[in-house]
Formats: sequence, C-alpha cells, structure tokens
Amino acid sequence: MTTNMRREIDEIPDVVERMLVRSADAISIAAEAFRAADPGYIVTVARGSSDHAAHFLKIACEIELGLLGASVGPSLSTLYGVTPKVSNAVSLSISQSGQSPDIVAMTEALQRGGATTIAFVNTLPSPLAASADHVIDLSAGPERSVAATKSFVCSVVAGLAIIARLSPSTALTRALDRFPDRLRESLACDWSGMEQVLQDARSVFVLGRGPTLAIANEVALKFKETCGVHAEAYSAAEVMHGPVELVEPAFPVLAIAALDRAETSIVDSADALAARGASVFVTSALCKNARSLPVPDGGHPLLNALLPITPYYGMIEALSRRLGRDPDRPEHLKKVTETL
Amino acid sequence: MTTNMRREIDEIPDVVERMLVRSADAISIAAEAFRAADPGYIVTVARGSSDHAAHFLKIACEIELGLLGASVGPSLSTLYGVTPKVSNAVSLSISQSGQSPDIVAMTEALQRGGATTIAFVNTLPSPLAASADHVIDLSAGPERSVAATKSFVCSVVAGLAIIARLSPSTALTRALDRFPDRLRESLACDWSGMEQVLQDARSVFVLGRGPTLAIANEVALKFKETCGVHAEAYSAAEVMHGPVELVEPAFPVLAIAALDRAETSIVDSADALAARGASVFVTSALCKNARSLPVPDGGHPLLNALLPITPYYGMIEALSRRLGRDPDRPEHLKKVTETL
Repeated sequence: MTTNMRREIDEIPDVVERMLVRSADAISIAAEAFRAADPGYIVTVARGSSDHAAHFLKIACEIELGLLGASVGPSLSTLYGVTPKVSNAVSLSISQSGQSPDIVAMTEALQRGGATTIAFVNTLPSPLAASADHVIDLSAGPERSVAATKSFVCSVVAGLAIIARLSPSTALTRALDRFPDRLRESLACDWSGMEQVLQDARSVFVLGRGPTLAIANEVALKFKETCGVHAEAYSAAEVMHGPVELVEPAFPVLAIAALDRAETSIVDSADALAARGASVFVTSALCKNARSLPVPDGGHPLLNALLPITPYYGMIEALSRRLGRDPDRPEHLKKVTETL
Repeated sequence: MTTNMRREIDEIPDVVERMLVRSADAISIAAEAFRAADPGYIVTVARGSSDHAAHFLKIACEIELGLLGASVGPSLSTLYGVTPKVSNAVSLSISQSGQSPDIVAMTEALQRGGATTIAFVNTLPSPLAASADHVIDLSAGPERSVAATKSFVCSVVAGLAIIARLSPSTALTRALDRFPDRLRESLACDWSGMEQVLQDARSVFVLGRGPTLAIANEVALKFKETCGVHAEAYSAAEVMHGPVELVEPAFPVLAIAALDRAETSIVDSADALAARGASVFVTSALCKNARSLPVPDGGHPLLNALLPITPYYGMIEALSRRLGRDPDRPEHLKKVTETL
C-alpha cells in the first residue's frame, strides 16, 4: 500500500509546475510590492518545516539580493508583547495550514510595526491569508501526511520566484521555468544505499552550508518525525569544532552539498569525517572518502541546493516503513501547530 | 586536581565585575555610536559559543529595543563574495580569540556595506579588534579550557550593557550593577541530581524560548564537547511537534526557564514531557511533574534568562570528569576556529 507521504512526494513536480502558473500573477504583484518597499532587510516568520523553507529564502535573499534576513520567533509578539520597529522591512510568513495562531499574531505585529507583509499558505481562505498584505497560494492540494513534503518545496519555489523577479540576473527566472522537469529527474535518484546504513542509527549529523544548511535542517526534522532518529543539522564549517566530539566510527553523517560555491567546503568536511571512520554520504561527485549520492543538476546554484530534498524524502519514507513505522502518522504528532 | 574549566567557571563573577568597570567607557562610546546610527535592525556574526551569545543579544535587542536581529553566516562573504546592503544596521561580531578569519572577513564586508560595526573580543590586539569601528574588551583573562565559559558570560553581559544604555527603562542598568553578586549565588546552586540522571544519557533535549533558547543552544553544545552526549536545543514551543517523536520513557530533558514571560510556557512543555515519562529537569519552581533545579533571581528578566548557565557549567564539568573525560581537552577539538 502506498502511503500518503509517498504519494505527496510523487506529486511534487506537478504541484510546483501548477503553482508557478496559477500563482504567477500573485507572485508578480508581491514582487512589485517588495521592490516598491525598497526594504533594508527581510523578516521571516514560520515554524517547523515552514521555518526551514523560510531559512532557505533568507539565505537566497542574502546571496541573490544582498539583503540580510531576520528570523523572528512568534513569542516576541505572543509572549513579550513587542511591536517591532520594521518600517524598513518586507516580511515573509509561511504556514501550510494558514492557521497557526502565533504565526498570525506575529504577522499582524509586523504589519502594525510597518512591514510590508507577504504570506505563503496552502489553505485559502485562512487567518494568515486574511492578515497579510499579499498572499501566495502554494496550490499544493491537500497535504494528508503529517510530515510536510510538497508544501515545503512549493514554499521555497514560490519564494524563489519572487526573488527571481527582483534579481539583477535573469538566470534564476529561466532556471525556475525548467525546474519541474529537474524535480522529476530527482525523484528517480536511488538513495537506497543510505537507507540500509541508517537502519540501526540512533544519532545522525546532517551537514550543510549556505542554502543547503536550511535543507539540512529540514532533513534532520524528517529523520526525527518519521523515523525517531536523533538527527541534528550542523553547519559543515562548525561541525569540526564541538559536535565532532560525538563522531565515533560508523557514526552516520549526511552532507548536503550542491553545485554551488559551498560545495568544496562541504565535501572537505564530509571527507574529513569519513577519514576518521564515520559513515558519510554526500550529495556531490567530488568526494574522496565519503560515499556519493546522486542528484541531478537543477540549473541554478539555489535550485541545486534545494533539489536534494526530493530524493531524501523518498529515502526517509522508505526507511520509516522499513523500521515498522507509519510515516503518515507519527505516534505523537498532529498536523496543525497551535502554539501561543 | 581542579580543571581549567572549573577554575574559569569560578572566575565568572569576578571577571564580569571587572569587565563592567574596565570596559565601561568603551561600552558607553559604542552605545552612543549605536544610538547615532539609529539602525533599523542589528546584524550578528559569530560561531560556536560566541554565536549563542550573539543569539542571546539578538533576542535582547528585540525585547528591549524592538529591533530585530539578522544572524549572518560568514560564508556569505568568504564563499559567496557578497557585500550586503547594511547601511541601516549596527553589527555585533563576537570572537574570544579575535582571530577567526571568517568572522573578520564578514565584519569587514559589513563595514564595506555601510554598517556600524562593534566587536567583542577577549584578545587585544587581534585582527577582529583591528577591523571593527568599536571594540569591547571582554577582559576575561586567558581562557585555557577549550570549552568557553567565562568568555561566553562576559560577551552576553557586555552586549547587555550596551543595550541597557539604549533602553527606555533603567531597570537593566540597575540590575547589571548587582549582577556579579547574583552570579556568585548561582555558583552555589546544587544541580548534582541532574548529573546523576545524565550518566547513561546518549541523547538529550534542551528546551528554551525567547532568550533562554540561546542558553539552551549553549547548553547543548557543552554537552557535546565536554561529554560526547548528543544534546540538541529546541524551542519549547516546537518540541511538542516533530522532535517529541524521540521522547521515550526516561529520555532526559533539561528545560531552561527563567523568571520572565516565557516561564509558564516552558514549564508547561517540561511538565507535559515529564507526564509521558521523560526524565525532565527545569530551572523553575512552577513545575508539577518535572524536577526543579535551583537558580537565584537575577534581578531582571534578561539576567534571569542568562543566570542558569553558570550552575549548568559547574554540573557539566563534573559530569565530564565522572564520565572519565577531560573537560579541558576534548579529544577532537582545538581552541581557535579557523574556517574560511
């Protein structure tokens, strides 16, 4: 029997293609509002997988537009009662359900503070959509698995489509047009070698740097929620300091490298950990000691950084079932987060 | 035999007291420059323990001044070659050694991009001190243990002293004057009950929210580097979602609560995890199911959030020795981080 998670992973190329068409006008209008606001920085508001999408977009804004990103915890509004001074900012709020009360409250506080607010939601109408200046419909269709997959990819691509319209280069726009086909290729990649190594894992490190650090965070969360494995994401630049103390022989490590400027530094960390006996996989062909995992070329450094997530989703869904779990229904989780 | 780490922990109240006197003028001058810059946001640059100090200061700026903080990875400059648009920002760079080449390079990029740059260093002269507009000498004396302790606390207090001078309220300034004595009281707190529970731990969650989330990150790093335990910090608001999947009976959890507005929400998460059988400790007297760890009143919500770190440092140093490790010399680590 096919799980909802597997079905939703397989839908990713189609829903991304559809979103880029259906939401094209909303994306253009939001991009124009962003340009008109001429912000000094961006602000992101999200939780869980959506926060990893927000992290990716923060790094993308930094690299592509030279604008730094401030991630703000919703508690600033809900617990500390602060209306931040953000008249010089554009904010991006992301919530699949559009219902998380703290994300809505923080978005409203940013609006009161003067920010131009953009929301990415997969559910319309919804309280978050109602509260923001501009709304992008992720158009991913109902997401039934508790573990978010297609809504994560749609959030990142929708944000990148806004950034692409603001970029001095047209390269990202052109690459996005061809991206659904790259996603289709990525789903055919075989990562089952890693699945076998992970069967007895209790702890895992997931490495990234630059935009792939956001992907590493998403990877680590899915390890936890679908497999109960204590995976933690780390900067490939920092893991060789404190965290390396845990890396004993056969300790599993997944390094997310991409065809971009961080690739060599990530592969160096992966090879160094493999040289001391860790069981290291890396999404790059440049490795010497670590084992290489296949990912197609996404056509742009930022899309290359995103692309490893889809073969990973496929691998972790299979591992969850192999471990006797139901990836659609983790024991302790529910879909809509309702923190205040 | 007393370790360097233990000796440096015991020095914390004295070095903080000394720093607040010796660096008072530099702190005032930096605060005036901050005020004159009238920034729209702050930027932080740091790695490891120093980055946790930066995280604390980011949250403190948000709560106390209503200014959001953007944490920027040094790779933006060293790998991606970006000079960010930061003419409306004040940046805080933190490095104990003042030597990390990537922190220096990123600070220089922020300066080129138009930011007013402030550096916190424990070593003068040093490349980072030479590169910034304003320098605060942490005055903590030589730090011989690889695990940073006194330099962490000095970094946070020095940053808070700047924020206190910019705050509309004088409460933080007054509380900082009395803080060295609160640090002395905190060192007398007995956390040995937790030390015993942790002897066989392989994975640990450390919870916080608001400013205590930064402390939770610092706690988790020290677990790794001094004890080889896979500790991970999590928002108390988020742990009940994906990460809770790992929490089996007797799973150890340390929740860092403080006498501030987040206390109840953190205690609620701690109690909920304890109710399902986890072995939960929390630095609050409000808990029902979790076990309470003592921390004195620091005299201000932000200082209350910082204060749990000192009894924790004492506990983790003792645990490291109990596990047969040398907290001064982790197997795989060195003191000065030199990433590019």
